Amino acid sequence: MILLDALNALSREDFVAKLSDIFERAPWVAERAVAGRPFPTVTALHDAMMAAVAAASAQEQFAFVRGHPELGGKVARAGAMAEASRQEQGALGLDRLSDVEFSRFEAMNAAYAERFGFPFIIAVARHTRDSILTQFERRLCNDGGAELAAALTEIGHITRLRLVAAVEGSGKPKTDGRLSTHVLDVIAGKPAEGVRLTLKEIGSSAEGVLKETVTNADGRTDAPLMGGAPLRIGRYEIAFHMGDYFASQGVTAADPPFLDVVPLRFGIAEPEGHYHVPLLASPWSFSTYRGS
Amino acid sequence: MILLDALNALSREDFVAKLSDIFERAPWVAERAVAGRPFPTVTALHDAMMAAVAAASAQEQFAFVRGHPELGGKVARAGAMAEASRQEQGALGLDRLSDVEFSRFEAMNAAYAERFGFPFIIAVARHTRDSILTQFERRLCNDGGAELAAALTEIGHITRLRLVAAVEGSGKPKTDGRLSTHVLDVIAGKPAEGVRLTLKEIGSSAEGVLKETVTNADGRTDAPLMGGAPLRIGRYEIAFHMGDYFASQGVTAADPPFLDVVPLRFGIAEPEGHYHVPLLASPWSFSTYRGS
Amino acid sequence: MILLDALNALSREDFVAKLSDIFERAPWVAERAVAGRPFPTVTALHDAMMAAVAAASAQEQFAFVRGHPELGGKVARAGAMAEASRQEQGALGLDRLSDVEFSRFEAMNAAYAERFGFPFIIAVARHTRDSILTQFERRLCNDGGAELAAALTEIGHITRLRLVAAVEGSGKPKTDGRLSTHVLDVIAGKPAEGVRLTLKEIGSSAEGVLKETVTNADGRTDAPLMGGAPLRIGRYEIAFHMGDYFASQGVTAADPPFLDVVPLRFGIAEPEGHYHVPLLASPWSFSTYRGS
Amino acid sequence: MILLDALNALSREDFVAKLSDIFERAPWVAERAVAGRPFPTVTALHDAMMAAVAAASAQEQFAFVRGHPELGGKVARAGAMAEASRQEQGALGLDRLSDVEFSRFEAMNAAYAERFGFPFIIAVARHTRDSILTQFERRLCNDGGAELAAALTEIGHITRLRLVAAVEGSGKPKTDGRLSTHVLDVIAGKPAEGVRLTLKEIGSSAEGVLKETVTNADGRTDAPLMGGAPLRIGRYEIAFHMGDYFASQGVTAADPPFLDVVPLRFGIAEPEGHYHVPLLASPWSFSTYRGS
Repeated sequence: MILLDALNALSREDFVAKLSDIFERAPWVAERAVAGRPFPTVTALHDAMMAAVAAASAQEQFAFVRGHPELGGKVARAGAMAEASRQEQGALGLDRLSDVEFSRFEAMNAAYAERFGFPFIIAVARHTRDSILTQFERRLCNDGGAELAAALTEIGHITRLRLVAAVEGSGKPKTDGRLSTHVLDVIAGKPAEGVRLTLKEIGSSAEGVLKETVTNADGRTDAPLMGGAPLRIGRYEIAFHMGDYFASQGVTAADPPFLDVVPLRFGIAEPEGHYHVPLLASPWSFSTYRGS
Repeated sequence: MILLDALNALSREDFVAKLSDIFERAPWVAERAVAGRPFPTVTALHDAMMAAVAAASAQEQFAFVRGHPELGGKVARAGAMAEASRQEQGALGLDRLSDVEFSRFEAMNAAYAERFGFPFIIAVARHTRDSILTQFERRLCNDGGAELAAALTEIGHITRLRLVAAVEGSGKPKTDGRLSTHVLDVIAGKPAEGVRLTLKEIGSSAEGVLKETVTNADGRTDAPLMGGAPLRIGRYEIAFHMGDYFASQGVTAADPPFLDVVPLRFGIAEPEGHYHVPLLASPWSFSTYRGS
Repeated sequence: MILLDALNALSREDFVAKLSDIFERAPWVAERAVAGRPFPTVTALHDAMMAAVAAASAQEQFAFVRGHPELGGKVARAGAMAEASRQEQGALGLDRLSDVEFSRFEAMNAAYAERFGFPFIIAVARHTRDSILTQFERRLCNDGGAELAAALTEIGHITRLRLVAAVEGSGKPKTDGRLSTHVLDVIAGKPAEGVRLTLKEIGSSAEGVLKETVTNADGRTDAPLMGGAPLRIGRYEIAFHMGDYFASQGVTAADPPFLDVVPLRFGIAEPEGHYHVPLLASPWSFSTYRGS
Repeated sequence: MILLDALNALSREDFVAKLSDIFERAPWVAERAVAGRPFPTVTALHDAMMAAVAAASAQEQFAFVRGHPELGGKVARAGAMAEASRQEQGALGLDRLSDVEFSRFEAMNAAYAERFGFPFIIAVARHTRDSILTQFERRLCNDGGAELAAALTEIGHITRLRLVAAVEGSGKPKTDGRLSTHVLDVIAGKPAEGVRLTLKEIGSSAEGVLKETVTNADGRTDAPLMGGAPLRIGRYEIAFHMGDYFASQGVTAADPPFLDVVPLRFGIAEPEGHYHVPLLASPWSFSTYRGS
């Protein structure tokens, strides 16, 4: 971690060296951005670096993009990647794929490389594995120009995250999202306290419960269900144990209760967005919505 | 099938013979009810037969109850039961249990027989397998008197269903329930037509999709989701393909959509009740309730 | 009232005479439609008469439209109109306007006649007085051709209603709408019985309560809140006495209750439509929607 | 305003003098509480003063209560009351009653004085005028003991408010409530910005619009609709201009729209509570609830 002010004051060489891990194997990006110093905000620094990429020749861009590691491929399996890439892919388990998944990635990587001449690039921190596969299949249908642009957009997301992790200072771009909930008991007209709930990803890449918690006196959870990082684009479910809650309130119910475990399923499409998914319930009715 | 009027006009012997399959191995029930003829309604006939059971001596009741077949036991497996019992248990797959389930039923049957001296009786047509197991476990905790009463109540349900199937006439007791739905599109302010939906039982005894259908121009299904028979006490889910619906309406949505397949989970506790479970939805909100 | 079959079988002269009151002072409409006999449906008869109007020369149409009475004008006040027109205007109180309203109508009638050369025509049975004034003001901005077309469309509505009242037979066009409600108690999970509710028009032409009734065991009203005629385009409110209802259910509430008299305000824009305006309520929450 | 610490450090005489306006014409209350110093919180100070009242003899309590001014009576009209009382009654317009209201208050004051021997006391800052009249009528039915207790409870509310206004320090008792709202557009799945809304009291004492404002980008109002003081017990309505909002969003609607101005009516019973009254709306549906 370095302070933006310190970065602004470094020698040209040290500035470039400090930022060498942000843009994969491309010190020239920092070199060309250096003239824009001093940067008033971290966002301005990132914008300047992305502008350098945009201003590069098509050949340079192509070479730059080609320098990125394959996704979920042999290199990932062998762990032979730059540390940042290794961590990013590892968090999603792309270095621990089953043989079937590995084969699928290998086949798509091969088809992609054959079609575009560079590896498939995506900001994995903003996706579930399901979402990555969906994007992979869609982007295979792009033409070369559109796909180069798509790759550079993803590099923008990747490097923004890396820069925010590496540089401290004012005006950091927003890179984290938030998922929150709120449970209201419409019989009592007040927050439902003590409701057990579990969050999980759904879909083929889901790997069990992401969070299990209980609502507090305000009907909310003490910490956001997800936050402090980009939300991963994908499909999720929060299951609320309303049957147990109403039983604990002494509300006489049917047997089995009409509402017991209430699942709310929803998709997340904005990694940097706020998703508020409340539940308003009686033992016989409930509603939800994307709130704010 | 016989008409109630014809039944009222039969000789005493024929009347008893005609009703011999209603109360398991207990012709005396019909014999004692015969004096109440003519019965104005099928309900009155059933009430009279149940009154005969209620008026019988404790010894007779005990012997009567003991004459019923075991549930999901060896006899069911061998198919060696009265036809009505065979059909009732077969519809729930109690003659096709897995070895593990069979062992569980055997163990509970043994514990029950040891405790009460008669087999566990339940109107299987009103239950899912999960619900039967729940009832079995609960009723094992009864004392003898309460459990004899519980068994007779279940015999009331069983024989009511058999009588309704065997006798045609006015004043038939209500033995069927109904599950219906209705999908409203709150963006358009009108019924949602063409929404694909699937109904399934959930829980350990669930065996796949019970119904798959599509909403009509009124946002309803052409036929009730369940009906024409008692609803089976248990837990269910209707999954509504709202993402596809809103896409078909040209409503621009997030990718993935906030709401895609919307599951509504609910319990059914009243086999003869009407459960109306509507869905009111926009691409960003939905609500449901037990309606009428 | 005459049967369509009888009408089809009349002499040409009698046919024309029978229908003389449908199109205001325009026997030629029936005369030109007569050749289309036999009409299989009442709708087909009306379509044929409107086709005759559409096929008439611009001069004939203009003369026809000019033959209609003024709305809410001196003639209405004096009661000197064709019976059908008198009844239609009277139902809305256009023959009993206050002096201020009368002046407003007179001014608009004068402006309209000056601009278009014929009186303002509107199917009053499909409007509240507020809605008529809104339409009046809007249509004053039309050009002559658009306004002649608008007048003929209204004449279509007017004559459809007259024809349906005069001729009995198959295939009558739909001319009536319906307003219904349904109250659900989401605490009990069942219809709310005994809820007092009042319907009124809101706006400057509102004249008090249109209906006051109580929900039945199904949470509905025994008769539709409005029906059997076109709904009048306008703004309405149903007020539900939920505070009294929940008190009667022994539901402990705040004092004063959070929800007491719950007003639902809504506009009706489709006179022949079905407006279902349900209320789902607990003592602390409620929702409504246009249902079906 | 004096600091609690300073108050704790005053001489006995100055302490009593400083607090002389809190309990109406009753310096003995402060005198008896003085021994409890130092008070760690403002709440503790108030509790100690109320404990002194509770410990007083029945005769003292009676004399104390009798020393309070009449409500809305001749004295109020003449403005001849202690400043605090004058301000409290004036804020509710009790010094500007119409002749009819004045007569009603006079009659009730007379009946009350006759029955109980002391004036009717109520913390007017926590009530609308309607609510005061309701309480007046109810409390007239109390027996003497219950009514003396009710009067002392109200004096607790009154003096708590006065003390909070007079003494600054830690541990101030909560004396303010809050009314907030939030408008969600369930078509867009986001907060509804720019919705005009008006808050008014409803009932016989209502005197027009309390607040008129517009929702901000978060669908909320920049300031609470009510706050910074006790909420007045009474009945309220927030009217949301949803028709204009949806028109501004280019959402095609019926004419007139199904939902135009949406009124939410609700009662406030807890002056120190938080009432969150959100509106979730599409052009064809809406819901509300008491949130938190």
